[in-house]
Amino acid sequence: MSRAYNFNAGPAVLPVEVLEQARDEMVDFNKSGMSIIEHSHRGKEYDAVHQEAAANIRKLLNLTDEYAVLFLQGGASLQFAMVPMNLLGAGQTADYVNSGAWASKAVKEAKLIGSVNVSANTEKDIPTKLPRIEDLKLTKGAAYVHITSNETIAGTQWKKFPVTEAPLVADMSSDMLSRSFDAKQFGLIYAGAQKNLGPAGVALVIIRKDLAERVSEKVPTMLKYKTHIEENSLYNTPPCFSIYIMMLVTRWVQKMGVANLYKQNVDKAAKIYSAVDNSGGFYKGTAVREFRSDMNITFRLPSEPLEETFVKEASKLGMKGLKGHRSVGGIRASVYNAFPLEGINALVAFMADFQKKNG
Amino acid sequence: MSRAYNFNAGPAVLPVEVLEQARDEMVDFNKSGMSIIEHSHRGKEYDAVHQEAAANIRKLLNLTDEYAVLFLQGGASLQFAMVPMNLLGAGQTADYVNSGAWASKAVKEAKLIGSVNVSANTEKDIPTKLPRIEDLKLTKGAAYVHITSNETIAGTQWKKFPVTEAPLVADMSSDMLSRSFDAKQFGLIYAGAQKNLGPAGVALVIIRKDLAERVSEKVPTMLKYKTHIEENSLYNTPPCFSIYIMMLVTRWVQKMGVANLYKQNVDKAAKIYSAVDNSGGFYKGTAVREFRSDMNITFRLPSEPLEETFVKEASKLGMKGLKGHRSVGGIRASVYNAFPLEGINALVAFMADFQKKNG
Repeated sequence: MSRAYNFNAGPAVLPVEVLEQARDEMVDFNKSGMSIIEHSHRGKEYDAVHQEAAANIRKLLNLTDEYAVLFLQGGASLQFAMVPMNLLGAGQTADYVNSGAWASKAVKEAKLIGSVNVSANTEKDIPTKLPRIEDLKLTKGAAYVHITSNETIAGTQWKKFPVTEAPLVADMSSDMLSRSFDAKQFGLIYAGAQKNLGPAGVALVIIRKDLAERVSEKVPTMLKYKTHIEENSLYNTPPCFSIYIMMLVTRWVQKMGVANLYKQNVDKAAKIYSAVDNSGGFYKGTAVREFRSDMNITFRLPSEPLEETFVKEASKLGMKGLKGHRSVGGIRASVYNAFPLEGINALVAFMADFQKKNG
Repeated sequence: MSRAYNFNAGPAVLPVEVLEQARDEMVDFNKSGMSIIEHSHRGKEYDAVHQEAAANIRKLLNLTDEYAVLFLQGGASLQFAMVPMNLLGAGQTADYVNSGAWASKAVKEAKLIGSVNVSANTEKDIPTKLPRIEDLKLTKGAAYVHITSNETIAGTQWKKFPVTEAPLVADMSSDMLSRSFDAKQFGLIYAGAQKNLGPAGVALVIIRKDLAERVSEKVPTMLKYKTHIEENSLYNTPPCFSIYIMMLVTRWVQKMGVANLYKQNVDKAAKIYSAVDNSGGFYKGTAVREFRSDMNITFRLPSEPLEETFVKEASKLGMKGLKGHRSVGGIRASVYNAFPLEGINALVAFMADFQKKNG
């Protein structure tokens, strides 16, 4: 079998050893005579998987007992609604930093629930950028401050996080576990799994437990963080398979070490950015340099037809998913934790070759 | 590998050929050089899976274009809230039939959203039963009538459905595709996948599209059926793997034929009920005969310690998951579509043997 270089933005590349293990135990998990997807979510086999997934996350993020680790359904998109439904009380205001397409979706949902102050807005800026921390207009006594740590479509990433008085809430869907950070800075972190953590179908939520107490009794049971904290994400049947793969991926992350992965991620991104910057203007990065993402590298070619040809020819060489998001066009190379260095080298070589032929 | 007899109530037994296919293509789906869980939800490989899953359901249920087929996250438990959030307008009343533990959860969530009339209540009846259709106290002009087609914990099942003036809404989590029925009778049907349809992590929703128009603009985007109808369940990243397995399972159901599966299900259940009824009172069925479920067969032994021994000894013989739900105790044999006849014969033989030794 020849493995493709998978530049998809998410669902995305996973460690091949994780896929192989999933394959090997798909029909018979742990000699139990059943697949992991046939096991009861209340039985001891699945329970060990569930507990290990949570324990791995705790360990990787150095979480204290103040925090709960939850596995929820509905992705980051449902979190856009759950965060304000749980944390934004009547008469309160929440601060949102609108840094791009994903942040603006979070803003839109929060406005359906309560009062929102947009603390900064770089959504429509070209070249794409993030607000400077010192420019954020924060509300005194805000319920929380919401940021998006990495904008997958724009290709921008916060290199450090604002220190806020109100609890800091972050959508880390696209860079969770790609670098170290101090979880204690945050009140709540959420991340759809389908980039660095596992397959689609589960969102990881890390929440300071006291914040979950704010919720009104009128919020549906499934939409209360409190429910899932009390029931250890087993109030109802969880998305067992997605959590199982997240357990295997977090085991792999522990083996690799987050610091090593971070170093590799920076190196991998730098190689592509360097190819862009040294192309004499043939390739043009779309994000302002200081905000460039290590996860999603976005750039343009001289014309849209050339971009189309670029994507097609790369695909023929086994480099898949390089097309930019349909809302912005261009090229996007998503290179998460599990993306291999050889794929970066292949892309960089292809970029040089393509320029030679078309430049 | 020796395959266990999996009597779990859900997640539950799946067709072994489905598991084998999932295994065989886990690392490399369709010679694409990636796993299905690494494919973009907007790419052609996953799209074919998504479309086939929906088409299979449409065909199996004979759905007209009036209906949409949706794949949502959060299980039936989130549907308990989404149904009233979408269909129960201010000033309206919804009729709910409280037939047991699951129906009562649906009632509880609906009461958080709006006005509920409990049309009948058999939740606490022992022996367990369902209300008679002619005894339902329905509200003139109700927003909808909600029923639970099969109570997994009690082991009761509606053999035919009420004909109602208001749209009929059914939680069919535990008997969907186990028998034929006329979908046109229903306004909305939902089912967590993890019994007859696939793994946990996806809920199948079938909705008459006009009903989705009732929703208020204040409902979060992810919680509106309208969003998912318009975006063909691709508004955000869907639970791709669970839908992929559902596609394989519905392919298998088409091959087997629902009418054949139904006949097998009735025969399988009848064998166990007959072993119960012919035990001279050693085994006692917990449901009133006319309401007995073909999916979940519940019975008691003379004492709780004997029940414990029964579950343990059965487990040693490879019969797993026979313990009744923790809220009611006793024995429960869940025998969904994919449960093999040999497992039924093994259980019946074991029941006779156990009685001989302990009766």
